[in-house]
Amino acid sequence: MTQRKKLSTDAYKGVRDFYPEDMAVEKYIFDTMRSVAERYGYEEYTASLIEPTELYRAKTGDEIVNEQTYSFTDRGGRDVTLRPEMTPTAARMVAARHRDLSFPLRWYSIPNVFRYERPQRGRLREHWQLNVDIFGVEGVGADIEIMAIAYDVMKAFGATQDDFSIHVNSRKLLQEFLSENLEDQNATKDAMRLIDRSAKDNKAKSDLQTLLGGKELSELRPNKALEQVFEQLAGFGIKNAIFDPGIVRGFDYYTDIVFEVFDTNPENNRSIFGGGRYDGLTDIFGVPNIAAVGFGMGDVTIRDFLEIRNLIPKYKSPAKLYICTTAPEYIDDAQKLARTLRGSGVSVAIDLSNKRIGDQVATANKKSIPFVVCLGEQERATNTVTLKELSTGTEQELPIKDLTTHLGNNA
Amino acid sequence: MTQRKKLSTDAYKGVRDFYPEDMAVEKYIFDTMRSVAERYGYEEYTASLIEPTELYRAKTGDEIVNEQTYSFTDRGGRDVTLRPEMTPTAARMVAARHRDLSFPLRWYSIPNVFRYERPQRGRLREHWQLNVDIFGVEGVGADIEIMAIAYDVMKAFGATQDDFSIHVNSRKLLQEFLSENLEDQNATKDAMRLIDRSAKDNKAKSDLQTLLGGKELSELRPNKALEQVFEQLAGFGIKNAIFDPGIVRGFDYYTDIVFEVFDTNPENNRSIFGGGRYDGLTDIFGVPNIAAVGFGMGDVTIRDFLEIRNLIPKYKSPAKLYICTTAPEYIDDAQKLARTLRGSGVSVAIDLSNKRIGDQVATANKKSIPFVVCLGEQERATNTVTLKELSTGTEQELPIKDLTTHLGNNA
Repeated sequence: MTQRKKLSTDAYKGVRDFYPEDMAVEKYIFDTMRSVAERYGYEEYTASLIEPTELYRAKTGDEIVNEQTYSFTDRGGRDVTLRPEMTPTAARMVAARHRDLSFPLRWYSIPNVFRYERPQRGRLREHWQLNVDIFGVEGVGADIEIMAIAYDVMKAFGATQDDFSIHVNSRKLLQEFLSENLEDQNATKDAMRLIDRSAKDNKAKSDLQTLLGGKELSELRPNKALEQVFEQLAGFGIKNAIFDPGIVRGFDYYTDIVFEVFDTNPENNRSIFGGGRYDGLTDIFGVPNIAAVGFGMGDVTIRDFLEIRNLIPKYKSPAKLYICTTAPEYIDDAQKLARTLRGSGVSVAIDLSNKRIGDQVATANKKSIPFVVCLGEQERATNTVTLKELSTGTEQELPIKDLTTHLGNNA
Repeated sequence: MTQRKKLSTDAYKGVRDFYPEDMAVEKYIFDTMRSVAERYGYEEYTASLIEPTELYRAKTGDEIVNEQTYSFTDRGGRDVTLRPEMTPTAARMVAARHRDLSFPLRWYSIPNVFRYERPQRGRLREHWQLNVDIFGVEGVGADIEIMAIAYDVMKAFGATQDDFSIHVNSRKLLQEFLSENLEDQNATKDAMRLIDRSAKDNKAKSDLQTLLGGKELSELRPNKALEQVFEQLAGFGIKNAIFDPGIVRGFDYYTDIVFEVFDTNPENNRSIFGGGRYDGLTDIFGVPNIAAVGFGMGDVTIRDFLEIRNLIPKYKSPAKLYICTTAPEYIDDAQKLARTLRGSGVSVAIDLSNKRIGDQVATANKKSIPFVVCLGEQERATNTVTLKELSTGTEQELPIKDLTTHLGNNA
C-alpha cells in the first residue's frame, strides 16, 4: 500500500500524548489521589466516557451543554455526549442502584472529561479529574470530611499550608442575603452568576453592586454550619480554610456549602479546584432526597501547581537491569538469564539491537535504567558478569547466579 | 428546577458502568497486566481517545473504519474518531519522536477503545485493552519476547498451560504459499480474508479451496523463523505454542509472524487475544523502516476467561476500620480518632448516618469492611473500645491508643 500523502503525527488539538515520562507524572498524581481517597474508605468506580446527551441538559449549566460539549449522533440515531464532568454520571449510577447501595456511600473516580474550549494554559479539551463524593449524609460532617480530603490530597503532594488556601462559602447563606437585598427576586440567578464572575470581571462586579442597591457582599458573615466547618477543620490542624462570600461555583446543582482551593502564589493566585454540596441531584432520575457532597480536582491545574514548586518526582524506569550482548549469538543467553531474574521479581530488559556495546549501554542510560550487564564469550565461559551501576559508574564482578540476590538487595 | 420527565438511569447501550465491585475486578486485571509488562521493562504511555479520522483510513481495515467507528465532526469542523484500537496511535507517537526515542523501545498501555457493534457476549462497544509493543527490532527475538509476555500475563492470572494455547503463523509464509498456488495473483488479499474466516465460516472455507485449486493450507510447514520461535519458547518452558496456518489476524498492517491465544475449554474454544509483527506502520507518517511487534488483550474476553475458571479475587474494601457512633455528639470523637489512625496509614471510614448502631454495623458488613468500633459515652469515659472483626465475630477490648498498632499488625 503506497501512501500518496503522509499523515500528520500531531495529536488532535487541545489533547495530550502521554509519552512514558509524562505518563509517569500522571500515574504519580493519580496514585497520590488514590491513596488519600482510600485512606478515608472511598471506593473507586468508573463509567464510560459516552453518555446520553439528555444527562447534561438538566443541571450542568447552559453554557457548557450548548457550547462546550462534544456531542454527536451515533450510527443508531442516539444523541450522545462525551462527559464534560463526572457528577451527573455518579448521580445516575447512585440513582440506578439506590435500593441496593448502603449509605453513607463513599465513592471516588479519576475519569477523563472533555470540553470544547479554546486550548490555553491550564485549560485543555481533555483532562483527568479526581472526583470524590459522599452520598447520603445531610449533616455538615460530610462537608468537613470532603474538605479534609481535599486538604490531605494537597499535603500528600508535598504542598504546605502556606501554598494554598480553602475558600469556603454557603449558597444558602448567599440566597438568604440576596432575598433580603434584591429588589427583584427573579434576579437571584443572575446575581449568583455575577458573584461567580465578579472576582475577575469588573463589569460583573459593578453590575452586582447595582443589583444589590448599595449592599456589599463583604458584609456577609458565616452562618452556624460554616462556623462548625471552620472550627472542626481547625481542630484537625487545618488552618488555611477561610470564609469567602464570593465563592459560588459554576454548576447549577450546588445547594449549600461550596469551596474552592486557591494557589496562594501571588503570581498564580487562582482557584485550582473545588466542590460542594449538591443534595437532590438524583431527583432528575426520580430518586429524591439523596444528600451529596463532593469535589473535582483536575490533573492539568494540579500538575502546573506541582511543577512550579518542583514537587514532581524524577522519572524511574520500570526496568532495573539492562542486558547487552557482544554479538547476536548471546541473545539466547540474555533471554534465559532475564527469564530467571524476572521469575525472582527483578525487572529486566534486553537490548536485542545488535548495535555496538557502547551504544547499547548508552540506550540503558537514556532510558534511566539503573544497572547494566553485558553478555559475551567471556561471560559464557566464566559464568560471571560485570554489573555496572550507571548513576555512579561503579562496576562489580559477580557470579551470574548471584545477580538475583544482588539486584534484589539494591531494590 | 422541576423535571417534567425523569431521566433514565441506564448507561449508553453496549458500554458498562463500573460499580466498586466491578472496578475492583478491572483494577486487578490491569494491575496484573502492568506488573508483567514492567517486569520486561516496558514503559507505560497513553494518549487521548480522540484522534483525527484520517489516522485510521490508511491501515486499520475497511470494515472497521467504514462501519464500526465512532466518527464525528467537531465544533471546529475537524473529522475525529474515538480510537477503535491503539496501534495507529502508538505508531503516530513513535513516528513523531523517532529521532529522540532510543530503540529498542518497549511500550505498553491499557486504553479504552470504541467500536460500533451489536453488543453481544464478549463484544461490547467499549472495552479496555492491554497493548504491549516493541519497536526497532527486526530479529525474531522481539516476536519471542512478545509471545513470552502474552504467556506470562496468562500465567500471572493463574491460568495453567492447559487452559490456553498460542497459535502461531507467519503471513510471509502464507504469502509465499499463495503466490505458488493461486492462479490469479490479484486474489492474494481475498485469499487472506478467506483464510481468516475459514475456521468459523464454511462458505469461506469452500471458497478458499476453490481459489487454491486443490492445495490444502494444512500442507504448510513452519519456516525457519517459526521453528526458532517454537524452539526458544520451549526453552523457556512454554510448551503450549503450536503452528496454525489458519491464523491471519484481521488488521491489514501485519507483515510477518502473527499469533492468537485460544481458550482450550472445549465449550469456549475461541481466540481470546492476539498480535504479531507490523514492520513499517510508521511509513504512513513518512518515517520508514521501523520494525514493530505487539499484541492487544481485551478486558472483556479475559474477564470471561477468568470468571469461568474462578480466578478473580474476592472484593476487598479500601477501608480497614468502620467507626460507628451511638449519638451525633460522638461524631467529633470519631473524626479525631479516624484522623489519627489515617495518619498512621490505617484506612478508616466513619458512619455519619445517625442510624441505629445495629444498622451502622450492618453497613460496614455490607461494604466488606473487616473491623468495626463503636464510640459513645462509655468509650469516651474509659478511653477504650471494643474492636470487632466482622468475618469471625471476634471482639477484643482495647485502649483507644492501641488501635493503630493492633490494626497495623492485622494489615
